[in-house]
Formats: sequence, C-alpha cells, structure tokens
Amino acid sequence: MDIGFIGLGEMGGAIAANLLTAGHRVRVWNRTPERAQPLAAAGAQVVVTPAAAFAGDAVISMLADDAALRDVVDAALLDQAPRGFVHVNMATISVALAGELARAHAERGLQYVAAPVLGRPDAARAAKLTIVAAGAAEAIDRVQPLFDVIGQKTWRIGARPQQANVMKLAANFMLASAVETLGEASALLSGHGVAMRDFLDVVAGGPFPGPVYAGYGAMIAERRYEPALFKARLGLKDVRLALAAADEVSAPMPVASVVRDSLLDAIAHGDGERDFAVLGEVAARRAGQTPREA
Amino acid sequence: MDIGFIGLGEMGGAIAANLLTAGHRVRVWNRTPERAQPLAAAGAQVVVTPAAAFAGDAVISMLADDAALRDVVDAALLDQAPRGFVHVNMATISVALAGELARAHAERGLQYVAAPVLGRPDAARAAKLTIVAAGAAEAIDRVQPLFDVIGQKTWRIGARPQQANVMKLAANFMLASAVETLGEASALLSGHGVAMRDFLDVVAGGPFPGPVYAGYGAMIAERRYEPALFKARLGLKDVRLALAAADEVSAPMPVASVVRDSLLDAIAHGDGERDFAVLGEVAARRAGQTPREA
Amino acid sequence: MDIGFIGLGEMGGAIAANLLTAGHRVRVWNRTPERAQPLAAAGAQVVVTPAAAFAGDAVISMLADDAALRDVVDAALLDQAPRGFVHVNMATISVALAGELARAHAERGLQYVAAPVLGRPDAARAAKLTIVAAGAAEAIDRVQPLFDVIGQKTWRIGARPQQANVMKLAANFMLASAVETLGEASALLSGHGVAMRDFLDVVAGGPFPGPVYAGYGAMIAERRYEPALFKARLGLKDVRLALAAADEVSAPMPVASVVRDSLLDAIAHGDGERDFAVLGEVAARRAGQTPREA
Amino acid sequence: MDIGFIGLGEMGGAIAANLLTAGHRVRVWNRTPERAQPLAAAGAQVVVTPAAAFAGDAVISMLADDAALRDVVDAALLDQAPRGFVHVNMATISVALAGELARAHAERGLQYVAAPVLGRPDAARAAKLTIVAAGAAEAIDRVQPLFDVIGQKTWRIGARPQQANVMKLAANFMLASAVETLGEASALLSGHGVAMRDFLDVVAGGPFPGPVYAGYGAMIAERRYEPALFKARLGLKDVRLALAAADEVSAPMPVASVVRDSLLDAIAHGDGERDFAVLGEVAARRAGQTPREA
Repeated sequence: MDIGFIGLGEMGGAIAANLLTAGHRVRVWNRTPERAQPLAAAGAQVVVTPAAAFAGDAVISMLADDAALRDVVDAALLDQAPRGFVHVNMATISVALAGELARAHAERGLQYVAAPVLGRPDAARAAKLTIVAAGAAEAIDRVQPLFDVIGQKTWRIGARPQQANVMKLAANFMLASAVETLGEASALLSGHGVAMRDFLDVVAGGPFPGPVYAGYGAMIAERRYEPALFKARLGLKDVRLALAAADEVSAPMPVASVVRDSLLDAIAHGDGERDFAVLGEVAARRAGQTPREA
Repeated sequence: MDIGFIGLGEMGGAIAANLLTAGHRVRVWNRTPERAQPLAAAGAQVVVTPAAAFAGDAVISMLADDAALRDVVDAALLDQAPRGFVHVNMATISVALAGELARAHAERGLQYVAAPVLGRPDAARAAKLTIVAAGAAEAIDRVQPLFDVIGQKTWRIGARPQQANVMKLAANFMLASAVETLGEASALLSGHGVAMRDFLDVVAGGPFPGPVYAGYGAMIAERRYEPALFKARLGLKDVRLALAAADEVSAPMPVASVVRDSLLDAIAHGDGERDFAVLGEVAARRAGQTPREA
Repeated sequence: MDIGFIGLGEMGGAIAANLLTAGHRVRVWNRTPERAQPLAAAGAQVVVTPAAAFAGDAVISMLADDAALRDVVDAALLDQAPRGFVHVNMATISVALAGELARAHAERGLQYVAAPVLGRPDAARAAKLTIVAAGAAEAIDRVQPLFDVIGQKTWRIGARPQQANVMKLAANFMLASAVETLGEASALLSGHGVAMRDFLDVVAGGPFPGPVYAGYGAMIAERRYEPALFKARLGLKDVRLALAAADEVSAPMPVASVVRDSLLDAIAHGDGERDFAVLGEVAARRAGQTPREA
Repeated sequence: MDIGFIGLGEMGGAIAANLLTAGHRVRVWNRTPERAQPLAAAGAQVVVTPAAAFAGDAVISMLADDAALRDVVDAALLDQAPRGFVHVNMATISVALAGELARAHAERGLQYVAAPVLGRPDAARAAKLTIVAAGAAEAIDRVQPLFDVIGQKTWRIGARPQQANVMKLAANFMLASAVETLGEASALLSGHGVAMRDFLDVVAGGPFPGPVYAGYGAMIAERRYEPALFKARLGLKDVRLALAAADEVSAPMPVASVVRDSLLDAIAHGDGERDFAVLGEVAARRAGQTPREA
C-alpha cells in the first residue's frame, strides 16, 4: 500500500520500519526531521509537510499527545485530504478528542480509525503489538493488512473510534493500578521484614502470572527504576485521560484517583522520567522507609 | 504421622480428608460435631475436646478468624500440650495474634508454624493448595510431609511465624485490588458502551493472564455473583487485617482503604455473602448504572 | 466611572445593578439579550457586541466558565481594546486560563485583574461580597471604587492575577471538603442512631461556628437539597479546577479527589442541579441508608 | 458529693482539681501514684486501689484508651461496686467497648454514663469543657452537678451510652478532616506562590470563623507543630476509632480513610508526638515542597 506516517518517536519509528520491511511504500513526516533519517535509509520517502503524508491509501499517525495531534491535524489538513481516505490514529489520546476527530473526518467524507496499541517499543520493533481498533468495519478492513504487519493480533471492539481509546485507557489504568498495588504491598511486607522477592515468587508464580507483576514487581523489589520501560510522566498522562473519560460518563474511579495522586507525588520528587514502578518508591516514602543502601 | 485437626469448615474438612487418604492418623475436633461425620466415615477419630486434638506429633488448626482461634487456643490448652509439639495454624489471622501465639508457644517450649494457604476449597479438595510457611526451620521440616500431601508447593518465607500471615494478607490485598480495579474499569467501559467481555479478551488474553482477571472479570461482565468463590464479607475481613498489619508498621495503603470502603458499601447493600466480585456492582452503582435486564 | 459589564447571570446581574445604583455608567452585554432588560430599566445601556462593552474606563466580566470566557474574550476583542484599559474578571475560571489571559492582556498593553468573589447571589444583591483580587496594584487601585460598591471587603493577595483564582479555588475546596465531611459524619451518626441535629448543636455551637457547618449541616440533617444555594454541578466544576491547579504544581490533594468522586456519584444519580449538600445523600447511599420517610 | 476519680493525666488532673475546688469530696487513684500528689495537696484523698475509688456516690474515669480502661475496670471491680452506683466515663474510647461496659454495668445494677468532653487541657483547667453525655436520664441527673462544675455546657444526646462516644468521634473526625483539608489547601497555594497567611485572612475571616481554622491554619502556615495541642498519635487513635465505629454500621468514610493514611505518614516520619497540624507537613512532602528555611 501507499501510505503516510506521521510521528516518528520510538513507537512510531519502529512501526514505520516494519511497514517498510514488509514492502509498503511509506511517506514519513516528523516535526524534527532528523528522526526520519534512519527510515529514509531504509527506503522511506521523507516529506516536508503533514499534508504530503495525508495522501495515498491511508495515513497512520502516532503523535505524543492531544496537543501535538491538534497542532498537526487541523481543519486545513483534513480539507485537502482525498475523499474516502483512511486516517489511522494509533496514539493514546483523550476520548473527547477522538470523538471530535471522528466527527471532523466524517463531515469531510474521510474515514477515521482509532487503533491504539498495547505493547512497549520492544514489542513494536518485534512486530508483536496488540492492536485495539474501532471505527467503520470497511475502513478497518482496508488497513488490516497494515495491522497484520506490525502486530500479532487486532481486536475490533466497536464502530465508534473513541471506544478503542476508552479501552486502551482502561487497560493502562489496570496496569497503573497493579503497579500501585505492588508498591503498597511492598511497603507492608518491608515493614514486617518480609522480602518482596519471596512475595513475587508466590504471587507471580501463582495467581498473578504474566509480565506485569513479575516485571514491575522486580523493579520495585530492587528499587531499580531505570531504564524506564514506561515513564511515570506518561503513566500520569494516561491516568489523567482515564479519569477525564470517566468524568464524561460520571463514573467515579477512586483507585484511579489514588494512582493519580501517587504519580503526582513521584513527579514532585523528580521521578517523572523514571519508570512508573517509582510508585513503589512513593509507597516506601509514605511509610518512612528510607532507601536501602547499595 | 499422628495428628490432630481443629476446625472442619469447607477448607479444613477438605484438607483433613486428604491427610486421611494419605494414611495419616487424624484426630478431628470441631465446635459443631456434625461437621466431623464425613471424616469419621473416612477413618478419622472424632475427639470431644480441643485438648484431645492437641496431642500426638502435631496439630493443624483452621478456624474462621481471630475470635474463634482465641476462643479455642487459650493458655490452658497450651499448658497441657506436650513439649516440642508442633502447632500448624493454616487460618488467615491477624499479624498481631500470630505474634502473640508465637510468643505463647515459645514460652511453653512448643513450636508454632504459621502456614496460611492460597487457594479456594476446590484447590483444597484437589490437594493443590499453595502453602506459605513461616516459623522455625526444624518445625517446618517436621510437618513438611503433611504439606506435601495437601498442597502442590510450599514456600518458606521466614523464621517468624507472623511473616507468613503478612504475606498471605498482602496476596489477598492484591486480589482485592485487582477486583476493585476490574470493577472501576467496567464502569468506565460501560459508560462508553464498550463491552466488558471484549475488554477481558484483550487484557486477560494479553498483559493480565491467569485465573484472577479472567475469572472475576467474567463475573463482573455478567453481573453474576453467585455461587460465591470468595465472599465479600470474608474479603473485607482480610482487607481489614491487611490494613491493621500496615498500621502496625505505619505504612499507608490508600488502595486498600478504597477497597475497604467499597466492600463496606457492598455489605451495606446486603451483598456480604455474595462473591466479592460485587465490587463491580458497587462501581456500577456509584456511576448510576442500573442493573442490566436479563 | 464609565464601565462595561459582560455576563448577566444571577451573580453578574446583581453586581451590575449595584454599580448602576451607585451612579456608575454601565454598558451591559449578555449572550441572551433578554437578561439585560431589568438593567436597562435601571439605566444601563445595552450594547450588542462584547467589543462595545470593552471600552470606557474598565470592563467587568462574569461568565460561566472557561469555555464561555474563551468564546467571548478572544484575540480580536483584545486587539481593539484601548491601551491601558482594565479588564476585571470576577468569574471562577481555571488557573491556566487566568495565566493565559494575563499574558494576552500584557502583550497588548492592557491591564488584567482577577477578582473572584466569595458569596452567593444573596450576598451579591446585598453588596456584601468578599473580593479576592490579584494583579498590578495600580490597576486594582483604579477599580477599587467599583469593588467598594459591590462588596464589603477586598483582599489583595498578589501581583499575578492567577493567584486570586488559586485562592478562590482553595476556598471552594475547603467548602466542598466540609460538606463531604458533614455527609460522612452524618452516615456514621445515623448508623448509630444519633440525631444529626444534636451533632450540629454540639459542633456548630462549639468548634465549628459560622454559616457553612450550620447551613449545609441542616440541609444534610433534613435531607433537603432544594432550593440549591450552590449546585452540585457547579461544585464539581470548581473541585475539578482545584485539582487541575494542583496538578500544575504536582500537589496531590487526596481529599479533593474523594470529593470529586462523590460529586460524580451525585451527578450520576441525577442530583447535579440540587445543592451540593447532596454529598450527604451520597454518603447515606454508600452506607445503604435508605431515605427517611417524610 | 462523695466521688472517686480514676486517671489523673493532664485532662483528668485538671477536672479533678476543679471538683475539689468546688467542695466535692474526691478519692483519687492513678496507676503512677506521683501524679496524685498535687491533688492530695489540694485536699484529695489518695487511694491505692481502683476499688477504693469505685465507692461513694459516683466515680469518674478518664483513662488513656481502651486497653488502659479494660485493665482497670474489670469484672471483679464491677462486682464489688455498690448497686445503683454511677460510673461516668469521660475518656474517648471505642464504641464497641462503650457498648460492652454499658451491658456489664446494667447486669450488675450499676449505672454507666458516657460523657466524653470537647476541649483541650486549657479548657479543662478553666472549667470550660463541653460535655457530651449519654445514658439513663436519671443517672445523668445525679451527676449533672459535677458536670456543671467542670464544663460550660452539657449536651444530652441519647439513652445508650455509646451514642456519646459516636458523637465525640464524629466531632474529632470533623477536626481531623479540617486540618487535612487545610494542609492540602496549603500545598496548592504554596505551589502557586500564594501565602497561606493571606488565605487564612480570607477564609478564617469569612466563611470559616472559629478557633479550628485560625489555629491549625496558623500552625500550618508557620510550619510550627510544637507545643502540641493535640498530638498526631492521639489524632490517629481517634480516627481509627471513628473508622471502627463506621465499620460496625457498614458506613464507608473515604475522607476518614485519607486522614488515617496521612496520619500514618506523619507517624512514619517521626511526627507522632507533634501537633496533628503536621498533616500540613505531610501534604507539603507529597508535593515535594521542602521545608522553608527559618
């Protein structure tokens, strides 16, 4: 296919590379053009305006947040896009903006598919992302070949694009809650002289299998928060979006509120760029448990 | 071995039955003697006082809560127990009482092992419990053959018995937090018209494998809370004990506080005997989401 | 003075009327022109564009929220305002927007004073508002004669306009927290058969004098939420703004998070237009306390 | 009257002194007898057993907590007390123990009045306590002359003694919530460079008059937590009792849970003996606001 790609951060860059490898023609655009160099070397055409990427069969966007997306995808850009064109937005954005974009595309006869992904950059590089897609079925059908190249599984979960964003936010809330919970459990155990490592053996080896508990649990047990797999600052961004989405439908989420407060505490202590396993550090600080010596 | 067994509830009865099947000689005592009948039929000797069970090589106790245990295991009972005797307490009790019992046994030259289990009655019947043991190593060595008969794995996690209780409470807190989190996620999704079932496909099929998310998630998705695998009333009991254990070491656990409040809400609405997946119902009620029609 | 007035809701209308009574020349504008009629009858000049109000010595704005303010006070309006002109914004808006407006005015040589008020419509009518003002001292000096006419006291609390908004939001957070606290106390007392009325006698007659505890306490005691002095929907708006302002400076506010969740619960149950003393109803509902019979 | 007095701490000592001054005959007992010396000098008869104080017309007890009270007031003591005798307990104890004591006294034909007080030691010395009494009306009638001597006002709020304890705990919860709220507001204001002092001028001079907001607010504004008027450790004790009383009637109190967590944080940081205005310090710490320099 002939596609555009907007936003070449760590995730976007890895996804675009996989599309090139699979033989698709990819026009790439990034605000800072240097990020496009490795892809150019791999055969991508570097374009100098977002409009040049909004052409061909489809465009994929993977920008940092609502503000970055609003900045690039404005009315002028959509006005010039070819009718019937499919815009796939893979970024985690607010449910409100997803709804706005869905309307703005529909008004112009454009297709808008929300397709946020589960998985970190290593999964993106390995083409093992999980894709949560929502939008018109025929639009998803058209870009499914792209999804097949970059992910291991696509879930279609609704006809309204913003539903995919809700689901992604709910999944990240689950993650954030699990990490906060591990942090609180760690403070409890530590206060009683029980090793977090032993606890992880029991729970991750039993009722809580999978990478989340074992991985974040180990970071908390070792008080090791770098390299960051998922930065606290970005974790907070997603919890804020989940709370905003819940606010729209008047759904109180008290655990999300707790996690938000703990992440603010982390950021207030200068840990925004560390892995959001620093929630363990916040729990330890609340309990007056000073950092262990190396 | 020649052992006593005190407390023949659903868990205790299943454990005692497996010990009998394995060829151990078991003297059983229960406050309501009728509960002992099936075991008598299977070869157990039914005794009429706890003291008669506190004899032989060891005794296992599995009583409902702190009050039940204090009622049965008092100073008089311990005074008459043979020196060197091992008391294995498998019930989930408070960390404070575990510490008291450890001291009371040590003062009399008795061994006290805390060995709470992970697993529900079906796991107990299938001899697939996970046992978390703490106490003197030589005491655990002596009863390890019993553990091998009733569980699939024994974790030894410390020399002070109460550490096993802390770990059990931390594990149950993890469980309760996961269920509350599923409930809040469900309210968010439901408010936006996304099916909880689809969400479970994505998360339980991805980052959150294992029986907890799939099982409780399904109960919440279907708003089906019976039969209760883990009653809300008992879940609250354990969260209270976790908070009390955290209080002892001045460790705030804000998510545990949220879960406690939500479980109180469940109980205030008459759901104490239903599965603690009713946390999903509490979250739905907070969001004004009336029960779905059948 | 020769002033403009934008926004003639219940608060704005009462303030503008007092300015007229005091002999000021007032040009008034409102999105729905009918609201201007009573003021026209009292001598106001009704203008048909916001620009016509943004003239003379100063303009006072009192619009509903950020969105309404952004809609009216845009770059074009500010571009045409006379240099040195003072804009006094009395509405409760976000700290972020207050900061933006301060910059937008300064860039054009305009003065921007934030002057949110404490007090409800009855206090506005009686010219008994408390005014919390921030901005350049000389700008406040110029409009102080207006403040003297509409309020009983002006507090000057800083040179940056947004500081007045922070203070207003902090004050409303205090109010919301007091009402939530009364609600929770009421649920506790009611559960034990103690009359909320008796409790109010003790606390409002002792450590907690003043109108807040006595007034909201009485509404909660009587489960009477209408007429609404301060609507739950508007209370939620202000708590959201307080949380957003706290987020900007990474300050966790767990009680504010609790109040936000409780107000969402109220709104989810259709109580958004009732007085935010419905927090008492939310607390009663959580405790399964069904409404008392009349 | 001829009365006994048990527990001569700061509060008890001041109350007993006022009773002596008013001409009552007072037999005093304290675990550490030295505390009785100043009262002996003022005319009290120092007795060496609690039983000797449980005689005459009535006894007043003012012990530190549930444990201290259980230790002294046991079945043996009650068995030997004269029938019809009135026991007035002024200490803040758990609702559960108050209920137990009410039954234990009734079974023996003794009167039990719960009469916790509002007011700190300075109010006790000045005979300006507020007394919240519950129990049989005729029993309260008999000891009313004593209340008149030591307090400025007696509220009678029910026939079941434990109701007075519920009310006292609800009042202390209100206090704790107000202080936590001030702490959170302070962190918000401080983050935006607004002086807490200015804020107190506005709110304590307006909607929140009275000593609570002005007094604790000033301590928070000045980050001055000594001398302690109400120690964090004792504040936590009362919040725990309020939560336990709420648990008995299945009433969630999320703000109380927040306050409990914050007080645990204070205690974990070594501030248990400082005034519970250290809640302000906890809020500042969460927001990464380092202590101001002197």
